[in-house]
Amino acid sequence: MKFCSQCGNPLTLRIPEQDDRERHVCDHCGVIHYQNPRIIVCSIPTWQNKVLLCKRAIEPRYGLWTLPGGFMENGESTQDAAVRETHEEACASIKVHDLYSLYNVMHINQVHLFFRSSLLSPEFAPGAESLEVALFSENEVPWQDLAFPAVASTLKHYFRDLSEGTFTLRLADVVIDADNRRLIRPLNFIHDDH
Amino acid sequence: MKFCSQCGNPLTLRIPEQDDRERHVCDHCGVIHYQNPRIIVCSIPTWQNKVLLCKRAIEPRYGLWTLPGGFMENGESTQDAAVRETHEEACASIKVHDLYSLYNVMHINQVHLFFRSSLLSPEFAPGAESLEVALFSENEVPWQDLAFPAVASTLKHYFRDLSEGTFTLRLADVVIDADNRRLIRPLNFIHDDH
Repeated sequence: MKFCSQCGNPLTLRIPEQDDRERHVCDHCGVIHYQNPRIIVCSIPTWQNKVLLCKRAIEPRYGLWTLPGGFMENGESTQDAAVRETHEEACASIKVHDLYSLYNVMHINQVHLFFRSSLLSPEFAPGAESLEVALFSENEVPWQDLAFPAVASTLKHYFRDLSEGTFTLRLADVVIDADNRRLIRPLNFIHDDH
Repeated sequence: MKFCSQCGNPLTLRIPEQDDRERHVCDHCGVIHYQNPRIIVCSIPTWQNKVLLCKRAIEPRYGLWTLPGGFMENGESTQDAAVRETHEEACASIKVHDLYSLYNVMHINQVHLFFRSSLLSPEFAPGAESLEVALFSENEVPWQDLAFPAVASTLKHYFRDLSEGTFTLRLADVVIDADNRRLIRPLNFIHDDH
């Protein structure tokens, strides 16, 4: 961020009065340009105990499998975003039930929300950002070819909760360790990596 | 948004290729400036079945009561934000437990998250944005002088769940009706307005 989006003048990076961290400030028109985390909303679309996954046709993680999801847009609710993204990526219609997991992904300033949902019918097809879309039971999930650790963590606990019939909200951070691996650091549950 | 924050040239509002909605696009350097909802994180700090509320020293809703909260910052987790905001607004230290409610506030492009938490000690004081900070039992809450409908809704259901000993995640939209009133439209619970 180098120029003011309101008046076009160069920005200064400094701590504004009554603030405690650096912001991009326009000394010409006075606007402070705050930058805040973005929300990624995903759905966990199910049909008869199987979960719908999409094989990514885009980077990052081209060719790996993920739950349908993407950036929440202005003017929509989180559940609207889950419906829209599932339609865009998997050409599927869902009914959204409940929030199932929340992951803080601090190194990229994102919060990922996963919503339990049901397919309205077993009809789906690859959208523009997917190579392939398919339903998977727990044993069929391509566990070694999942795109993101938050997706793997969500699916693992989802199937466990499904077998027990009770769904518990999972909160976790996705952190980078010294070897640049992304690890799940749970807030309110025991995370089992196996 | 009128000028490109990367190169300072004027922006065009148009639908980019392979997109389905208008974005602010820079035809000079090619950057697309996406705008997305922001996250407000609040805590529900408790001490011996009382909840800590702050009387607002800032607009909007100057002089009305609210739970401590504010904009989530880049580089922090949602629970970090709850801890920081509670310290800034109420000079209080908390341990965060679980996510308790999520409100989509579409007309201002915000998502509000409320976390259950405990005060580490009964020590608190007004921060720069508060006139007064105090603990309230359910009967003592200034129900007619609460700043935001999501705060009123969260407190009402929190005290009900507290009496029953089980906390259930609440998801809702805050919508504007024809008379410009803000109403709670629940997704997964019965909302009782009285």
